[in-house]
Amino acid sequence: MELTVYLAGQIHDDWRNEVKQKAKEKDLPLTFVGPQENHDRSDDIGEDILGKQPGNFYKDDAASSINNFRTQVLMQKSDVVIALFGEKYKQWNTAMDASAAIHLNKPTIIVRPDSLIHPLKELTNKADVTVETIDQAMEVLQYVYE
Amino acid sequence: MELTVYLAGQIHDDWRNEVKQKAKEKDLPLTFVGPQENHDRSDDIGEDILGKQPGNFYKDDAASSINNFRTQVLMQKSDVVIALFGEKYKQWNTAMDASAAIHLNKPTIIVRPDSLIHPLKELTNKADVTVETIDQAMEVLQYVYE
Amino acid sequence: MELTVYLAGQIHDDWRNEVKQKAKEKDLPLTFVGPQENHDRSDDIGEDILGKQPGNFYKDDAASSINNFRTQVLMQKSDVVIALFGEKYKQWNTAMDASAAIHLNKPTIIVRPDSLIHPLKELTNKADVTVETIDQAMEVLQYVYE
Amino acid sequence: MELTVYLAGQIHDDWRNEVKQKAKEKDLPLTFVGPQENHDRSDDIGEDILGKQPGNFYKDDAASSINNFRTQVLMQKSDVVIALFGEKYKQWNTAMDASAAIHLNKPTIIVRPDSLIHPLKELTNKADVTVETIDQAMEVLQYVYE
Amino acid sequence: MELTVYLAGQIHDDWRNEVKQKAKEKDLPLTFVGPQENHDRSDDIGEDILGKQPGNFYKDDAASSINNFRTQVLMQKSDVVIALFGEKYKQWNTAMDASAAIHLNKPTIIVRPDSLIHPLKELTNKADVTVETIDQAMEVLQYVYE
Amino acid sequence: MELTVYLAGQIHDDWRNEVKQKAKEKDLPLTFVGPQENHDRSDDIGEDILGKQPGNFYKDDAASSINNFRTQVLMQKSDVVIALFGEKYKQWNTAMDASAAIHLNKPTIIVRPDSLIHPLKELTNKADVTVETIDQAMEVLQYVYE
Amino acid sequence: MELTVYLAGQIHDDWRNEVKQKAKEKDLPLTFVGPQENHDRSDDIGEDILGKQPGNFYKDDAASSINNFRTQVLMQKSDVVIALFGEKYKQWNTAMDASAAIHLNKPTIIVRPDSLIHPLKELTNKADVTVETIDQAMEVLQYVYE
Amino acid sequence: MELTVYLAGQIHDDWRNEVKQKAKEKDLPLTFVGPQENHDRSDDIGEDILGKQPGNFYKDDAASSINNFRTQVLMQKSDVVIALFGEKYKQWNTAMDASAAIHLNKPTIIVRPDSLIHPLKELTNKADVTVETIDQAMEVLQYVYE
Repeated sequence: MELTVYLAGQIHDDWRNEVKQKAKEKDLPLTFVGPQENHDRSDDIGEDILGKQPGNFYKDDAASSINNFRTQVLMQKSDVVIALFGEKYKQWNTAMDASAAIHLNKPTIIVRPDSLIHPLKELTNKADVTVETIDQAMEVLQYVYE
Repeated sequence: MELTVYLAGQIHDDWRNEVKQKAKEKDLPLTFVGPQENHDRSDDIGEDILGKQPGNFYKDDAASSINNFRTQVLMQKSDVVIALFGEKYKQWNTAMDASAAIHLNKPTIIVRPDSLIHPLKELTNKADVTVETIDQAMEVLQYVYE
Repeated sequence: MELTVYLAGQIHDDWRNEVKQKAKEKDLPLTFVGPQENHDRSDDIGEDILGKQPGNFYKDDAASSINNFRTQVLMQKSDVVIALFGEKYKQWNTAMDASAAIHLNKPTIIVRPDSLIHPLKELTNKADVTVETIDQAMEVLQYVYE
Repeated sequence: MELTVYLAGQIHDDWRNEVKQKAKEKDLPLTFVGPQENHDRSDDIGEDILGKQPGNFYKDDAASSINNFRTQVLMQKSDVVIALFGEKYKQWNTAMDASAAIHLNKPTIIVRPDSLIHPLKELTNKADVTVETIDQAMEVLQYVYE
Repeated sequence: MELTVYLAGQIHDDWRNEVKQKAKEKDLPLTFVGPQENHDRSDDIGEDILGKQPGNFYKDDAASSINNFRTQVLMQKSDVVIALFGEKYKQWNTAMDASAAIHLNKPTIIVRPDSLIHPLKELTNKADVTVETIDQAMEVLQYVYE
Repeated sequence: MELTVYLAGQIHDDWRNEVKQKAKEKDLPLTFVGPQENHDRSDDIGEDILGKQPGNFYKDDAASSINNFRTQVLMQKSDVVIALFGEKYKQWNTAMDASAAIHLNKPTIIVRPDSLIHPLKELTNKADVTVETIDQAMEVLQYVYE
Repeated sequence: MELTVYLAGQIHDDWRNEVKQKAKEKDLPLTFVGPQENHDRSDDIGEDILGKQPGNFYKDDAASSINNFRTQVLMQKSDVVIALFGEKYKQWNTAMDASAAIHLNKPTIIVRPDSLIHPLKELTNKADVTVETIDQAMEVLQYVYE
Repeated sequence: MELTVYLAGQIHDDWRNEVKQKAKEKDLPLTFVGPQENHDRSDDIGEDILGKQPGNFYKDDAASSINNFRTQVLMQKSDVVIALFGEKYKQWNTAMDASAAIHLNKPTIIVRPDSLIHPLKELTNKADVTVETIDQAMEVLQYVYE
């Protein structure tokens, strides 16, 4: 049984490659999708496609409409969502994506360090599973196939 | 036509009273509901009801289950959701509540200062209306009655 | 049994007053809601609340976000939707509202003149009832109470 | 990841071939579906199958029931909807299809020229992404695969 | 707790008055709604409102669009549906209404005589409760208040 | 694009084979599913699996639970539903299946002879397309592929 | 804000009166509904209404169809569900009702003693809040009004 | 037509192998999924992945969150659910899974011995089909392919 996994969260380091590498090591039949990982491209996509916008709000709104479109297409194709929170990049859109996933009945795993227990308590309580490391998230996925 | 409005967002100052005062001044038939505004009570409600928990994660998880229950009851009773973001308290659970509201088809207004345009761009793009001040949010509600 | 009726369609003449007058004459327990009928106010509401925008697209997008918010609040409160099309004002947003109403399972009546049979054929086929005059629409509502 | 794209909009020129050609050039794994593009066949399909009808309304209603059936089958099979509006053919059924797509949670791109900003403002505000050219729409789809 | 009950089924005798009378005797806080009970009015409502139609199919289609509108409005307002089948009037639209009610998650009671067990077996199996007499249906409603 | 078609309706003659034969002639990529066509097996399936039941009601209820299970499995797998009504076998469960299909948003074609216009008027008004012959139904399906 | 609370669980002692008494003491604006509390009546309701059945399975099936009807009517009217599990009466239908409530998006509180932690672990994990005593459940409801 | 079947129920004997063996004998194109069948692994999975928990409640809650995640992933992929109840292992989570399946519109078969008729009467009344043996359940699945 093949599963598609949406990887929500920050795009500033290569944690998604770590996930993919571990899935490969475990030989799990998973396909991974996620947001645009090139940060500049993600911020500029509105102006890249629609042309120069008249200010920061408009530039950001244009970019986010296309990023949200991408997320919607890919999340609807996914069977599982993993949302990673880190100490450095405290993005609201990861919380938005995790909440959206839960309300779309996508089984959802949150990965967050020990230090973020308190600020993420309502979201982790709503998610299906909360773990602290990528390794643990992969063990949860592996468990589905046992 | 009476409307019930859920006021999502931080509970560290009295912005909800400001909202209620302005609704009164405008003579709008609105009922406001929202999270527990006593911060200590909100953090302690799990242990207040269930007794001492064996650590911070467990204390927070117990509290958030009861806070999420409260939010679910009151948001389901609401016709409109206003979610306020401020520079000081960058709470993920406000993003979670706003995303939940949008996915429950609750008409949603986001209030956020100019300085938060970039980090909130995906969420404000998904919301129905985004404004910068409480006054503007109240004008939007008033407009429904014009 | 009281019913709330959303009146979708152009705001350039006073057809909504005609509807309300006829409901009064027939003594039907109906409450009517609908879009902002002051055309300038409807076009300017974005800038009225959010301030000057940097161009027509941005002005229109700001206004429509608030008009859509209003429509969403009021249509969700409605039991029935009447959408009126006329020869003069061929608005796409009336078609959008009628299609939205049908997909929200709101019983929907379309009013359109004989001359618009062809261009509205797909929409009238999807609606529950299609009539040519306001009088006929009111007779349909009256029939619910017989 | 293969995606199926429903192409809503007028059927008077060959814009759908332009879309398909560009997808091929970009080597995107897209399948395109859409309405009957033979205009006479689309108008006559009711009488072609059901026989002569007693007037224009009945001819149109018979045709539109079969066209709506086709649209429903194909849109439910689609992952994305592109709705094109042009200056020449201001069809209400394109607005109806775009609104239907949005309410069916299909990620939706609207293509409309600069000149239609005002009359389409409510619909473009509700859509996920709005662009001005087919090229831009294809760039949005390409972005999903980056 | 007041409940609204939709009474689906034939309109050729006064079984609905019997239901109402028994609810009154039992002092149950029920409001009853249902289809147009004047048979000629029900058959003619299309032409009564829309004018002479060009044949039986068109007359019937016009009437049924308005009858279906009425049913949709009233069934959505109902908490419970009772569908009565009799030996004499074997109407398909009663089966249609009962099936609709079940799929709209309306708690549904079917009343049918012993002689119709076999032809109604799939529908009674899907309904929540099946009884043979109006008295029994009223006892089921009374039981909700015990 | 392959489509699965559920063929609802009576099982007393071989109309389903006629459908399948015509699909083959037209070279349409359709898969057909439907109810148990062996009439005795359909009536006896409850007792065949669960053993002798204590009377006709119980025998029929046991059979219909298994027939309804079968219908639910196969209809959920289908993209389109065709429901055939004939003069001879006026089955309520065909009306039930057609109404279920419509409420499950399955594009639905009703086939019924001219003589049944009046008794089926509410159901045909609700269905997407109504035709009089199997040939016409197949032309509708063929039209989806044009 | 008045709330209706469905009290799921065993009917062998008067725990529901304890709940109602405590709500009164706390002056909470709650209305309570629940299953038939007369155990014999609940078991016999099928035969009471439908007459003697040909065996235990048929008697039980008749009774449960009417009990399930009652539960469906009242749970749909409820804003909150409390499901109580005790050591003595380990009813599967309480688990069924709690699971149904969760899937109907009813905010759900489970009350179960310490000794049942293990056998109820999957269900309590899915519920919004789990407590050990009726007092604690009432404190959770009281918290909604703070 | 291939179907995926979720096998809910106790994990203390090898009834799932019996099911799979019989499907093989009957040559049915079925894929089976289900819970973790290694009982210790199922109970320990929370601590296996998340580490030592501070007590039984926390150990069980951690395990059940991961078991519920697994169930949600696999049940959403399934076309049919079979839930087996036995005299020895009277698990509430089987009732929870069956109730969840019914509310997710998964066609559901309950297998339970004669001795459990009374305690399971509400659940079996809600399920699509109830049988007493695995052989009978397999006959029901086989019937779908006849």
